[in-house]
Amino acid sequence: MLVEFNIVPIGTGESMGDVIAGVLKVVDNSGLPYRANAMGTVIEGNWDECMGLIKKCHDEVMKTAPRLYSSINIDIRPSKPLDRLTEKLKSVEKRLGKSLKG
Amino acid sequence: MLVEFNIVPIGTGESMGDVIAGVLKVVDNSGLPYRANAMGTVIEGNWDECMGLIKKCHDEVMKTAPRLYSSINIDIRPSKPLDRLTEKLKSVEKRLGKSLKG
Amino acid sequence: MLVEFNIVPIGTGESMGDVIAGVLKVVDNSGLPYRANAMGTVIEGNWDECMGLIKKCHDEVMKTAPRLYSSINIDIRPSKPLDRLTEKLKSVEKRLGKSLKG
Amino acid sequence: MLVEFNIVPIGTGESMGDVIAGVLKVVDNSGLPYRANAMGTVIEGNWDECMGLIKKCHDEVMKTAPRLYSSINIDIRPSKPLDRLTEKLKSVEKRLGKSLKG
Repeated sequence: MLVEFNIVPIGTGESMGDVIAGVLKVVDNSGLPYRANAMGTVIEGNWDECMGLIKKCHDEVMKTAPRLYSSINIDIRPSKPLDRLTEKLKSVEKRLGKSLKG
Repeated sequence: MLVEFNIVPIGTGESMGDVIAGVLKVVDNSGLPYRANAMGTVIEGNWDECMGLIKKCHDEVMKTAPRLYSSINIDIRPSKPLDRLTEKLKSVEKRLGKSLKG
Repeated sequence: MLVEFNIVPIGTGESMGDVIAGVLKVVDNSGLPYRANAMGTVIEGNWDECMGLIKKCHDEVMKTAPRLYSSINIDIRPSKPLDRLTEKLKSVEKRLGKSLKG
Repeated sequence: MLVEFNIVPIGTGESMGDVIAGVLKVVDNSGLPYRANAMGTVIEGNWDECMGLIKKCHDEVMKTAPRLYSSINIDIRPSKPLDRLTEKLKSVEKRLGKSLKG
């Protein structure tokens, strides 16, 4: 399954760059395929892999923040099991006949 | 923690009332405190309870749908551990000096 | 259309009850039908009504917060135009044969 | 402001690649800066630009779908007005000392 998540630390001030850097270190160390964008991170794996990683990221944020908001979006499509992280966008680019700014 | 989730079955037609009824039966049977609204269901519990329940709801939907989109929003605030499902809104009503249409 | 939104003020500390109370005052004054829950507020109207109201709520939050995160979920179904704020849940309750905790 | 949105057409079958391609054509023609990823599209602009574009994308989807779900996430931070589409991620990469897979 494909999962995009973003975590917003609350009560730690206006800037959240340090916290997000800590989160992305956890993601990078997980070994799961991922793509970071300006509003969240998309990961691919099965339920336990994805949710286990997001739990770890929450724990990372709660080390410094007294509260957090977290938003998770999931796309599950068993008939297309492989490498949807890149294939999903590629299939749209093929239809458009042009490469999208990733 | 507080979690709102909603699951959108894909490939099963325009109406999703039957699927959502199946999901809410699973939620109701779980024993976790919950409130359903027109756009989702808010549940309260710890990580394993909440995510375990959402996983079961996904499995319920995947019995009939070839694909699903699911959206999960989480509010974690350890300093306010108890009954936030009702207390969070009550604290706002108190500030407003009026009861909100729930 | 049905719209659920929630606004998270950033940089104003752990508690957001005062800010949310301000937002709900704006919603209440708008005259649009709405239901507040522990994780957001569901409103019903056309695009301009709903988005105009959410813009006003953002402006309200930005009076005191240097930054905000806002999450909006929309369900558009032209074949069911009327009072989906209550009818959508009722149609599920009918299928379940029981009243849901709202 | 930064906005990520994704639109899920309902009642048009399991595959949504054709619909998403149509949406991205509308985004590409808008002239707004954007980045597409496997779960959504991030755009940058002011409220009217961003919401006007998302409205156009909805209209595009409603040409073929009887219903849609749409999810919009917004980050507003007036103190950092310029090119957050690329700068936000860059500031995290700088902290990490490595380039992220975009």
